[in-house]
Order: sequence, then structure tokens, then C-alpha cells
Amino acid sequence: MVAAETGLFIVGGFLERQGDLLYNSAAIVGPGNFLGRYRKTHLWDTEKLLYEPGRELLVFETPLCNIGVLVCYDAWFSEAARTLALRGADLLCIPANAPDDWVPEHQRRGGLTMLNAHCITHANANRLLVACANRVEDGYLGRSCIADTTGGVLAFGSATEEELVIAEVDVQRSRREKQLTDLSHAFGDRNPGVYQTSSTEKANS
Amino acid sequence: MVAAETGLFIVGGFLERQGDLLYNSAAIVGPGNFLGRYRKTHLWDTEKLLYEPGRELLVFETPLCNIGVLVCYDAWFSEAARTLALRGADLLCIPANAPDDWVPEHQRRGGLTMLNAHCITHANANRLLVACANRVEDGYLGRSCIADTTGGVLAFGSATEEELVIAEVDVQRSRREKQLTDLSHAFGDRNPGVYQTSSTEKANS
Repeated sequence: MVAAETGLFIVGGFLERQGDLLYNSAAIVGPGNFLGRYRKTHLWDTEKLLYEPGRELLVFETPLCNIGVLVCYDAWFSEAARTLALRGADLLCIPANAPDDWVPEHQRRGGLTMLNAHCITHANANRLLVACANRVEDGYLGRSCIADTTGGVLAFGSATEEELVIAEVDVQRSRREKQLTDLSHAFGDRNPGVYQTSSTEKANS
Repeated sequence: MVAAETGLFIVGGFLERQGDLLYNSAAIVGPGNFLGRYRKTHLWDTEKLLYEPGRELLVFETPLCNIGVLVCYDAWFSEAARTLALRGADLLCIPANAPDDWVPEHQRRGGLTMLNAHCITHANANRLLVACANRVEDGYLGRSCIADTTGGVLAFGSATEEELVIAEVDVQRSRREKQLTDLSHAFGDRNPGVYQTSSTEKANS
């Protein structure tokens, strides 16, 4: 209803039940319709006792841009962000309830949480936009952020107070700036042949 | 000779020639011997016109710890850091000549370059140590850094002046702290089945 009244697109977490199974999910809602839901694929700690993991990383096509969704701990896995980028995401939306990340405050540059740092590097490595909303108070670190396709921080929220974190972005920039120079490309410069993708296999050369 | 006189292990870049082929390489030298060399696998821009790319991501066993080596632009590819981590690296050493990363200075939190940000997230995602030496002046951004296994920044160098950047670290911590909680593990929580690893293939489910 908020989406319809305001013309906004909203990505927000919810508890999903299908039969006897529970999922930690995020819904994506446009002004006119429900666009779908993403089920968190990387479950944190005791979430594994409650939820089924999602089995698919999804990109939602909207009139604004292509939106990839990750939930909280998913953001710690650069493979997930890369997958969404390779599937055409222009913007990653990351609702999160990220608590203490065990970094002493004096070892944070610019007050960045590790969730912030992952948002920045996902944006920079994949040349896409990232918007991350993180819970405040009760031990959660807040500092919601919006990162530009360069990895620059366009907006940075409070650690303690609920607030709106807003930035104006150029969604075309993500597509245009995958090409870094005449000879370098954010995806084309990858060398899948030398990467090891599972803990057990050898490099898939 | 410096390594032998001081008892240090040194990782440093050099131009390698083999027959008619040139490589952008880094040597790893211990107090008693030459331990090997790594050839940069991700060539930046016009480097592609000069150098052959390396074909292997290497971890060097030393009496101090297992050292994975990346060179400059390699650090932009989280897959490379992950590969070295999965192969047992306790410490990533990253010699770099990283120039402007196109981020406006006011969009950097804590003055972090994108190279710094990648060092932090590699450390945090893989629960290993990262030591990165970056060139200063002449358009290079400097800010050499050492990141702890949490992603915390232990030492941060000047943007403009050559200097020693030093931190005391616990190399065992990297191995001990892959296990994040009773139920969560930095590698075990990965979901290779949902990741897309090349630009063309579907997810390798």
C-alpha cells in the first residue's frame, strides 16, 4: 500500500512460510504489484535450525533498473554479489539485521562496519549500485549505506537512530562503466580458469 | 641479501622474462632462500599488450605461515583471494602500483582507497591476514595497509610518503577463526551450487 501511494519500489524482509518450511525472505514490491521474493541463501548460525536456505539468486526486472537482492549474511559472500552482477543486476538491495562484526571500533576506518565494506567492494568490483539497510540499536550496527558504481559512499546512516538514507543515482552508469578502459572490463578481466570455486575441488581449469 | 641479513621474508614485484615472454611477477624471498615467484593473473589495461598473464594462484609455505600472493589489480577479484584462502593461505601479500580509483575523496570513508576496501573484505570474508604495499606519489594512492582476520585495520600508511607500515599479528588466528560460531564457518557457509562463475554459463548447480 505504501508502494502504491508513494510510487516507490520497496525491498524488505519477511518471514515466509510454505507448508511446514520457513524461509528468511525479502519481498520486492512495486507501486502496481508484488514483483517477487528472494529467499536468503546463506543462513547465519542458528538460522540453520529454523529456516530452509534459498536455492536461487534472483534479479528482478523493474522499470527503474534490474534489482538483485541479498539478505544480511549473504553480503559476506562476494560470489553471491558477483552472480547477481553477471545476471544483469544494476542495483543490489540488501536488507540486513547485522549485529556486532567483532571489529574493535578503533580498527574501523571511517566507522565502516564489515557490512559497509562488503557493500563498497561489491559495488566497485561489479560496477553496480548498492543500497543496504541495516538495523540499529539492540546490538545491531546500523550505518545503512548507498554505494555508487565506483564504490564511493553516497550516503551513510546513523549507527543508532532510525532514519531515511537517500541518494540520487544514475542507473545507466552501472551498465556503461563495466568497461573500465579500452582494454579492461570488470567482468571480462576475470579469469575463471584459475579460480577454485569449492573447498574440495581443484581449480576448474 | 636484505632478507638474509635481517631474517625477514620479503614479497616484492619484479619484471620477469622467460624466453621472449614477459610477466608482471612478484618474488617471495626468505632469509635462507628464494621461495618462488607469482605471475600476476589479472592484467590491467595496456599491461595486456606487454605481459603474459599468470596461469596459477600460488600459496607459499614458509616457517612463518602460508603466504598467498596477489599483485595490484588481482586484488579487485574476490575470486582470486578466495582461491588462495581455500588453498590454505594465512596471509595475503599484495604489492601494488594502484593509481587513481576514480572515487571522489569525499566519498571515501576514512580515506580508504578501493584497494584498501578490497584488502579489508578479503581479510574479513576469508578470515585471513592481508598486507598490502602500495606506491605513493606520481598519481598513486599509497595508503599501504595491514588488515586483521576480522577485517580490522591494524596499520595504515601515508598517501604521499614512503614509510614502513608495521603490525604485530597472530598467524594462528586465521586458522582458528574460520569457524565463526558453533554452526557457521567462513568456507562451510558458502553455497557453490547457487553461484555463477563465468559470464556465460548458468549456475553450476
